[in-house]
Amino acid sequence: MLSSSRNANHAVKTHELPDENLADLLPIAKKIAIAIGAENYNILQNNGRIAHQVVDHVHFHVIPKPAATDEEGLVIGWPTKSPPQDELKALHAELLEKLQQ
Amino acid sequence: MLSSSRNANHAVKTHELPDENLADLLPIAKKIAIAIGAENYNILQNNGRIAHQVVDHVHFHVIPKPAATDEEGLVIGWPTKSPPQDELKALHAELLEKLQQ
Repeated sequence: MLSSSRNANHAVKTHELPDENLADLLPIAKKIAIAIGAENYNILQNNGRIAHQVVDHVHFHVIPKPAATDEEGLVIGWPTKSPPQDELKALHAELLEKLQQ
Repeated sequence: MLSSSRNANHAVKTHELPDENLADLLPIAKKIAIAIGAENYNILQNNGRIAHQVVDHVHFHVIPKPAATDEEGLVIGWPTKSPPQDELKALHAELLEKLQQ
């Protein structure tokens, strides 16, 4: 587990962290992945109790996936929806606009 | 979905990306999280087919979790083990040593 706790900034969720702190995190996750030596792994970061966040401080999990089984490593469920194309297009346009702000 | 494809560097897995490219990614994920406006969300990055990676290019998912249900957003299973304390201590020491290299 990789935590931002050594930073001066305390933040519960990722979007609350300054960019300069965020920039530091993935190079450290990379070091951890290499140290673990896992060929297959997941990097997971949870924001909010209902999104599986247990510790109220931004932190990243580097989780080795040793085998293609539900008995080890991260198991993922990802229910999908199929909204109408025009709804998707509208959402896409809305997000693009917000990203340009 | 946030991909590193606009970088000059193509990499399949996170630990293959140069630090300077990695540093760029989370500030972008933050922008996306803010644009989505989700209070609760997960950031997920998969490395390797058996670790749920479908596209062979480093990419991050920013996944809103609208409700505490298995019907929406990311659902996580995380089988844990309870190895003996001395095994954990040995692994901890080994990882620390590798991280200092």
